[in-house]
Amino acid sequence: MTIDLTRLRVDRRRLRNHFEALARIGATPEGGVHRPALGEADIKGRKWLCERIQQSHLAYMVDPAGNQSALLPGSDENGPRIILGSHLDTVPGGGRFDGALGVLAAFEVLLTLQDAGYTPPIGLEAINFTDEEGTHIGTLGSRALTGRLNAKDLQRPFQGQSNFDNGLARIGLSRHNILQARRPKDTIAGYLELHIEQGPILAQEGTDIGIVTAIVGIGRRTLLFRGQADHAGTTPMSLRQDAGRAAGIFTGKAWDTLQNNFPDCVINVGSMRFHPGTFNVVPHTVALDLEYRAPTKRQLEALQEALIGLAQATARECRVALETGAAETSPAATMNTRMLDILAHAADRLGLQHRRMPSGAGHDAQSFADLCPTGMIFIPSMGGKSHGPDEQSRWNDCINGVNLLLQAALIMVKAFQDTG
Amino acid sequence: MTIDLTRLRVDRRRLRNHFEALARIGATPEGGVHRPALGEADIKGRKWLCERIQQSHLAYMVDPAGNQSALLPGSDENGPRIILGSHLDTVPGGGRFDGALGVLAAFEVLLTLQDAGYTPPIGLEAINFTDEEGTHIGTLGSRALTGRLNAKDLQRPFQGQSNFDNGLARIGLSRHNILQARRPKDTIAGYLELHIEQGPILAQEGTDIGIVTAIVGIGRRTLLFRGQADHAGTTPMSLRQDAGRAAGIFTGKAWDTLQNNFPDCVINVGSMRFHPGTFNVVPHTVALDLEYRAPTKRQLEALQEALIGLAQATARECRVALETGAAETSPAATMNTRMLDILAHAADRLGLQHRRMPSGAGHDAQSFADLCPTGMIFIPSMGGKSHGPDEQSRWNDCINGVNLLLQAALIMVKAFQDTG
Repeated sequence: MTIDLTRLRVDRRRLRNHFEALARIGATPEGGVHRPALGEADIKGRKWLCERIQQSHLAYMVDPAGNQSALLPGSDENGPRIILGSHLDTVPGGGRFDGALGVLAAFEVLLTLQDAGYTPPIGLEAINFTDEEGTHIGTLGSRALTGRLNAKDLQRPFQGQSNFDNGLARIGLSRHNILQARRPKDTIAGYLELHIEQGPILAQEGTDIGIVTAIVGIGRRTLLFRGQADHAGTTPMSLRQDAGRAAGIFTGKAWDTLQNNFPDCVINVGSMRFHPGTFNVVPHTVALDLEYRAPTKRQLEALQEALIGLAQATARECRVALETGAAETSPAATMNTRMLDILAHAADRLGLQHRRMPSGAGHDAQSFADLCPTGMIFIPSMGGKSHGPDEQSRWNDCINGVNLLLQAALIMVKAFQDTG
Repeated sequence: MTIDLTRLRVDRRRLRNHFEALARIGATPEGGVHRPALGEADIKGRKWLCERIQQSHLAYMVDPAGNQSALLPGSDENGPRIILGSHLDTVPGGGRFDGALGVLAAFEVLLTLQDAGYTPPIGLEAINFTDEEGTHIGTLGSRALTGRLNAKDLQRPFQGQSNFDNGLARIGLSRHNILQARRPKDTIAGYLELHIEQGPILAQEGTDIGIVTAIVGIGRRTLLFRGQADHAGTTPMSLRQDAGRAAGIFTGKAWDTLQNNFPDCVINVGSMRFHPGTFNVVPHTVALDLEYRAPTKRQLEALQEALIGLAQATARECRVALETGAAETSPAATMNTRMLDILAHAADRLGLQHRRMPSGAGHDAQSFADLCPTGMIFIPSMGGKSHGPDEQSRWNDCINGVNLLLQAALIMVKAFQDTG
């Protein structure tokens, strides 16, 4: 019997049951989820997923970075695999959808294909990546698997070495083995990830699906404007070297620069710290935390240059000195154009309205973008809310996204078959 | 024998000896003075002054607010007095000149007249006012003496009730008696104060003397800009309600407003506090500490109105809310125009270059301005520095100021005699 795979749809009820069971693990009184990587709730969540996979008769695996996989083997067991994945960990006091929906969607796709009695020509693997949110080390699992992590990255976990080591030990792992999770490039045929948008655009437009064109690169710097402390009553305005004035003008003009010259980018002045910070002393130093994001490497560089240039010009205008600080940069990841077409084709097949858009947030998909054909699906976030208990997506939107993941995966399988 | 009083000059060496002896009391390793009101060094300084006055055969008095006086009695012992004064207390880690020079100058004027064998027709009193700097309660002594202090002011000393009470007890005083220091209006014929400028204008211009036209009024508010926290990567710039942007634009434009419309006023944005204050979250709230100073009540009100209007317009432009907070205001004090003429006349007599200027800082003189003819003399501060060990004035400038205080006091005496 031949199955018409284009008509295959996921099991809504099973997916919902899984989603709600998982959302109870680390649930907060406010309706969100607190499941930071390698903490108590995350370990419970990992145990829950392990049991679900084992009950399903899909193969279960864990690698040295703690990445958990369900595998639907292909007819060529030694061939490469298509990976579908996301993460079960959350930010502290996070929401129910971010990451979790993508992992359960990947698992559901495999279960649906298994239920259909389908043996694909190429293996399909659903993965829960360790610590995407950066409780210890951001996108730890996906970077370890794709070889984008190095020994230096492991030396500065955000909560210190011993917290990290203890967390790893709780799931039977060691920092010293993590880099062994790296897989050879030719074992990975492609990567797909479903995620909530975490922004307001799809919900505001009423569009069903966002097809991610790029995951933005992120730069961070602390700008130090250094002027001179003076008596705020006796020093004429014209003689002041006011670091706060420079920081203020920079912030206003940086917004203008973005809106005029970088429509695809965003910036944020997340904090300013004034010194000495009292009513009656002109601030001699202001530390300004600047973040900037752009969808391509070239744009990120141009944006950084424009912002530094603006800060320098503003400092000169206000007669204060500027220290631009060291930049911490996460590179931009461009999605494969053929994958954009596959996703659009699959969305059309399902009758879903879709649009292309960059992702302003980082995702596990960025670890794969340079390695293999990589695609990413967004579904609408109500009110654009994320990383909190008010993170919410409509259930119909979730189902649309999961069916799109299924159909896009099947088109990738077919493409592999046709070329292989 | 008739003395030509217009040729009388103070004793430079005695004044310098007094200045240096006093500067050793509370001296800091950095070359400044740490003598906060009612602390150990201040009490030593008070004891030193008491002994110097008592050795001089001038009358010594202390009132219930701790104000210390030296009196050169007039021929009418029951008549009003001309008061010359300032304060011996300093800010923590302050300088040698602020306040101390004015007290020693007043004392030196009386000593010089006493040495000359001169009995004025009206009494002359040199006063060290308690706690001008506000270690416990700002301009405590001068406000108590002039009746500008009330019971409510005494209830909130900056370092708490028990510290204040203990400090008073160390000099034999009680909070409950302070208001009894108030003197009847008709006992005060005029007030003169010599002080360092604490700003850079006189030194930069090379002008010998500043004749103070007004002591600025001071307003303080904490403006709260309230927007919305959002993901700094996924929220388009156009949809953000960024409290930091509003605070930044306000700061830049407030400067422009000052320079264009309020040339005699100053403002200071002393601090901004961003919430939540991280790189990747759009700040939902910024608390901005705003101070504004103007030489007249009307200008202070107009300035406040302009600043609040600007903050409101900026908040609207950035689509954030604004809370303007409660204003804490210290009123402006205008100097007597006849006193300005007397001071100019005396400066001309001494061949000193002078200019009129407002005082951006508060002084004991402001307590007297509504009560009696009040005048204030500034001498140059090198580099405009004050309230620190680098506070410095040239000794010649100090002597010029003290001789001006002497000559101006003599003109006031003569004016009293002519009209009385």
